[in-house]
Amino acid sequence: MRPNQRANDQIRPVKITRNYTKHAEGSVLIEFGDTKVLCTASVEEGVPRFLKGQGKGWVTAEYSMLPRATNTRNPREASKGKQGGRTLEIQRLIARSLRAMVDLQKLGEYTITLDCDVIQADGGTRTASITGAAVALHDAMSYLLNNKKIKSIPLKSMVAAVSIGIINQQVLLDLEYSEDSVADTDMNLVMTDDGGIIEIQGTAEGAPFNLDELNCLLDTGKKGLLELFQAQKNALNNAI
Amino acid sequence: MRPNQRANDQIRPVKITRNYTKHAEGSVLIEFGDTKVLCTASVEEGVPRFLKGQGKGWVTAEYSMLPRATNTRNPREASKGKQGGRTLEIQRLIARSLRAMVDLQKLGEYTITLDCDVIQADGGTRTASITGAAVALHDAMSYLLNNKKIKSIPLKSMVAAVSIGIINQQVLLDLEYSEDSVADTDMNLVMTDDGGIIEIQGTAEGAPFNLDELNCLLDTGKKGLLELFQAQKNALNNAI
Amino acid sequence: MRPNQRANDQIRPVKITRNYTKHAEGSVLIEFGDTKVLCTASVEEGVPRFLKGQGKGWVTAEYSMLPRATNTRNPREASKGKQGGRTLEIQRLIARSLRAMVDLQKLGEYTITLDCDVIQADGGTRTASITGAAVALHDAMSYLLNNKKIKSIPLKSMVAAVSIGIINQQVLLDLEYSEDSVADTDMNLVMTDDGGIIEIQGTAEGAPFNLDELNCLLDTGKKGLLELFQAQKNALNNAI
Amino acid sequence: MRPNQRANDQIRPVKITRNYTKHAEGSVLIEFGDTKVLCTASVEEGVPRFLKGQGKGWVTAEYSMLPRATNTRNPREASKGKQGGRTLEIQRLIARSLRAMVDLQKLGEYTITLDCDVIQADGGTRTASITGAAVALHDAMSYLLNNKKIKSIPLKSMVAAVSIGIINQQVLLDLEYSEDSVADTDMNLVMTDDGGIIEIQGTAEGAPFNLDELNCLLDTGKKGLLELFQAQKNALNNAI
Amino acid sequence: MRPNQRANDQIRPVKITRNYTKHAEGSVLIEFGDTKVLCTASVEEGVPRFLKGQGKGWVTAEYSMLPRATNTRNPREASKGKQGGRTLEIQRLIARSLRAMVDLQKLGEYTITLDCDVIQADGGTRTASITGAAVALHDAMSYLLNNKKIKSIPLKSMVAAVSIGIINQQVLLDLEYSEDSVADTDMNLVMTDDGGIIEIQGTAEGAPFNLDELNCLLDTGKKGLLELFQAQKNALNNAI
Amino acid sequence: MRPNQRANDQIRPVKITRNYTKHAEGSVLIEFGDTKVLCTASVEEGVPRFLKGQGKGWVTAEYSMLPRATNTRNPREASKGKQGGRTLEIQRLIARSLRAMVDLQKLGEYTITLDCDVIQADGGTRTASITGAAVALHDAMSYLLNNKKIKSIPLKSMVAAVSIGIINQQVLLDLEYSEDSVADTDMNLVMTDDGGIIEIQGTAEGAPFNLDELNCLLDTGKKGLLELFQAQKNALNNAI
Repeated sequence: MRPNQRANDQIRPVKITRNYTKHAEGSVLIEFGDTKVLCTASVEEGVPRFLKGQGKGWVTAEYSMLPRATNTRNPREASKGKQGGRTLEIQRLIARSLRAMVDLQKLGEYTITLDCDVIQADGGTRTASITGAAVALHDAMSYLLNNKKIKSIPLKSMVAAVSIGIINQQVLLDLEYSEDSVADTDMNLVMTDDGGIIEIQGTAEGAPFNLDELNCLLDTGKKGLLELFQAQKNALNNAI
Repeated sequence: MRPNQRANDQIRPVKITRNYTKHAEGSVLIEFGDTKVLCTASVEEGVPRFLKGQGKGWVTAEYSMLPRATNTRNPREASKGKQGGRTLEIQRLIARSLRAMVDLQKLGEYTITLDCDVIQADGGTRTASITGAAVALHDAMSYLLNNKKIKSIPLKSMVAAVSIGIINQQVLLDLEYSEDSVADTDMNLVMTDDGGIIEIQGTAEGAPFNLDELNCLLDTGKKGLLELFQAQKNALNNAI
Repeated sequence: MRPNQRANDQIRPVKITRNYTKHAEGSVLIEFGDTKVLCTASVEEGVPRFLKGQGKGWVTAEYSMLPRATNTRNPREASKGKQGGRTLEIQRLIARSLRAMVDLQKLGEYTITLDCDVIQADGGTRTASITGAAVALHDAMSYLLNNKKIKSIPLKSMVAAVSIGIINQQVLLDLEYSEDSVADTDMNLVMTDDGGIIEIQGTAEGAPFNLDELNCLLDTGKKGLLELFQAQKNALNNAI
Repeated sequence: MRPNQRANDQIRPVKITRNYTKHAEGSVLIEFGDTKVLCTASVEEGVPRFLKGQGKGWVTAEYSMLPRATNTRNPREASKGKQGGRTLEIQRLIARSLRAMVDLQKLGEYTITLDCDVIQADGGTRTASITGAAVALHDAMSYLLNNKKIKSIPLKSMVAAVSIGIINQQVLLDLEYSEDSVADTDMNLVMTDDGGIIEIQGTAEGAPFNLDELNCLLDTGKKGLLELFQAQKNALNNAI
Repeated sequence: MRPNQRANDQIRPVKITRNYTKHAEGSVLIEFGDTKVLCTASVEEGVPRFLKGQGKGWVTAEYSMLPRATNTRNPREASKGKQGGRTLEIQRLIARSLRAMVDLQKLGEYTITLDCDVIQADGGTRTASITGAAVALHDAMSYLLNNKKIKSIPLKSMVAAVSIGIINQQVLLDLEYSEDSVADTDMNLVMTDDGGIIEIQGTAEGAPFNLDELNCLLDTGKKGLLELFQAQKNALNNAI
Repeated sequence: MRPNQRANDQIRPVKITRNYTKHAEGSVLIEFGDTKVLCTASVEEGVPRFLKGQGKGWVTAEYSMLPRATNTRNPREASKGKQGGRTLEIQRLIARSLRAMVDLQKLGEYTITLDCDVIQADGGTRTASITGAAVALHDAMSYLLNNKKIKSIPLKSMVAAVSIGIINQQVLLDLEYSEDSVADTDMNLVMTDDGGIIEIQGTAEGAPFNLDELNCLLDTGKKGLLELFQAQKNALNNAI
């Protein structure tokens, strides 16, 4: 039995709080159970050098865990003097996923940076980051629209992410840390709300998995994503 | 007139939330108005090399601002590959202040690390960090006591900090950002709850100040600290 | 039509040269068409700190491109002072994939490091790295066996990797650079020679992809992997 | 009794040698007893990016200790790859203090960098640095005047610094290392020669201090500063 | 007796393979016995900042060893975060030597970067690097000529390098690793093909050497260089 | 004519001041004309890891220039976060040269670190560093003897260094900066006081040089070294 009597294909309670901090153009606290990530979207004029003069915008992301977001304290990357491989891998995933959400041509020469800082970790920090940052990114684009910098929100489709895993031959949705750390297979699935796959990353930590299991993982993931898209929609519909 | 009709010698509303996150031995969200700092205390066995074998404990601190805690986005220090001078100066101040709170001999060979991460900044982040971290440190020592690692809480006295400044020849207590950025003099005062001074740092940003002004700054600061000690006391008296 | 009249589901000519350099316990030059990667396996006694005393071995990997492996010169990471996110992401993938090949418990307290250095790049450097490093790793384990450090080769199964992509709604196997740079979807598939999936990473660079396309990508990838397993087998069967 | 029969409110012999090296626009060796610091002032056209186009100048500072300036050798910061927190804290203090000496508007778009390199350390290196760098800065401004880059020396007032401490309830002026290392309270006081306070930094290393002690520290510090201002004046009056 | 029955004044078999990789404007694999270095020449428009606007070109070099080029694995400099002193010393030598080969004024505002990556090391990697990079540099200048960027090849003279050492009072030419590691004196000699000395670096690792020995080292080195110039000539005469 | 009417084979006035600072076991200020280098020798128990347990000692060196030792200010390496290639190349040369002076077996398990910090530069900083550090190293070994850590001074022979160059076909001894910057050939010669060569490094900055010129450079260098050995001897004979 899963912790808190969760069914195998049940996600944890999701809570999305917009305008969590006051300075950023988009600021979202997202909670997947005990996992809490603050996702801010910062709008800056201009684009990186490699895009200059093309009239296109850019979306990028950075990810970090507070030192004591986890059960034991992790040394601070700023004090170690470099970001680790896991951090860089995750923030590249977040950035790719969110760029798929935006028509960069219509965004114009703005850069939107998504900062995903994990306040508390209990598994699924990268999927919570993507799901929350998508809302913050939407708010940042609304900010540009409201300030007449763009004529419409250049949204291609909403994006969300969820993890799925296999433990003892059971497919489980939205793994928390105690599950994640013993899973045989760990998969992250990023999709659009119209059913397209943006990114699929599956890793056999223990035994390899087969095609049938892969299909079961995908089905279970899609079910979870439907609920996440609804949670995003509800949050964006709330006046703030 | 100050923002929000504050009197010159009035601190902003202070809110101290204990157990803000679940993993750390002490975890406090402190708010000085719109300034919000998460202060966690992490207990580890052992001490740094220079203290090994002396039977004494150690208290240290790290400080960071989330990239969008401020009005414009600051590049992440982890991604720049080093902590800036301001960061290092502040975390050294926090650590010195909190070590004054503890009888390190009675703590025994434990290291307690205070991580102060600024979620939202509006002036006074270092004084909020010290005041909140003192509560987190107290909780971490209670944890050690409850787990029978120490026989009593090795507290010398509580410590808190406040800023005071001079603008247009007016002495103001607990400056927020819009005040701090135009102050002629900026002072941080760290004291114990039995009236001892732990640290005083005063800087003339504009015109130099004189001894009379210094005494007025100190008096005003002491008034603010009395309220902060009361807020700490109230927080620690609450069951959690 | 693909370059060199390749069929959509045809891999490039693969060449695996064992004992390419003389010092390493395993040393393989692998060529996927014009992509050439030198994969060396280095055996060292002992394991990283987090594994000490458990009697288990460790397999890790590092990846790098020579500055002029590509069409324009890339600044050397050693001279920039840090490895980029792409490099770290790739070497983490290589290491995870190869660890799946070995029974670490039976390896005993040895660390085998796979260095994958790209001599010439034309797309698919990470899949060539994994496929070649698997042979070098096998040679390194043979070395340990021949030197009576282990009693049998602790091989769980051979591992290989291939890329598959979608361009203009066509599924293509083993993309070269001119294809990779315009692909809508880019997938890397790592499998064992007994049909298990070790890692699947698919990214929609342009339009999202759907489940049918995913299944087609997987089928095409499996076809390519069968040929790669055969090439590994042939190489390992040759006396050297 | 203090070393060398010094009275409690007596500074160590001060020696200021101008033009100590030949390349810099200002070059001062300052000695506070056995503490010896080389302070050079370098004039460069232009200002940092954040000041561009405002017609104002800038004054900044860097501080370092030679590895064997101290009793045991300290690893070189250049070889460790970063400056420590203490170094950054001190050079920020030096820079703030010296900026208070100059009317930056009248300086025009020049940057003056003060390099304070400790040749030999025996306590009070930061106060000696400030006091010596003030003379070097004055020489650099004279250089600009003599070369007709500015019309008058944009001096607001001279600045000097001294340390004061409490040991065994005695207030001592200008602590040397053997005193500094056992002081209960350690204070640095930076003032202008017309009696304004630029910076006050007091730290209770052992027991906290009270307001009476603070006032006594300030009085004693002011006495020492009068002598330092006289030493600066004498040095600047000498033809060189 | 030397390994492989080499005479004291005999170089190892030299093999120069042009066009070893396909992207670079010059790409040479050079082998001095078991020492194998890949030397690529990359042409870029423009010059470093300090040369801007002078109409002159620039030649620079970088050097690296693959981690397992040597008998035991060396940690990768990119992963350590900095290049070691030996690496920097060698690449400065290579760059100086090759600049002596080119009339930079006639090259015009192009930068040619020589990357020397040691695939396999057995002594003499820096002399092999210089000798091979000279051919790659020649090819890069031919490329510029063939593409009508320059009117003639701005070659002053060919450059090559060889090592000479003293072991047991014997002068030996072109030391391999087993010799180099026990040599009393180790010398590197860089000359032009018209007999000029570009660089001489001799180091007494064990006993000091005297003038007679120095002259003998030089004579022996010159003999080896004649053969290396011939090998370069042969390689450049081959159609490719 | 050379500056200050120097003859071509005349060194600049040399001044060696022992005990220049008080903490180091050896502390020498050496002046070659306007070039001034502080050379300290620091004795520490123990040796680097690669020498542990062999009963041998170690001699190493670090080199740095103060930022304004030169005509224009050089950014501080500690603040840039790494030592440059020139610095590393020079400190490796200093260390190799001084190790040739000591019988490391007889030194026993001590490490002596020579820090050469250039206070003022006017050409020849590396040769002044070696010549001055040799005296500091001698003093450090005397310190070990006087403290009964060793039974005799493990000196093999004194070591000194001088530069020689060719300008307009004239061979010049001990180049100062205005000469060094225009020299066609620049050579550094390190010898023992009994006539052995420790290190020879000659570079053709402009035209290549030939064997006759090399011999002339060596003869002129030897003449200069005789005077430097005498200056070292005189300094060491003075009581201090």
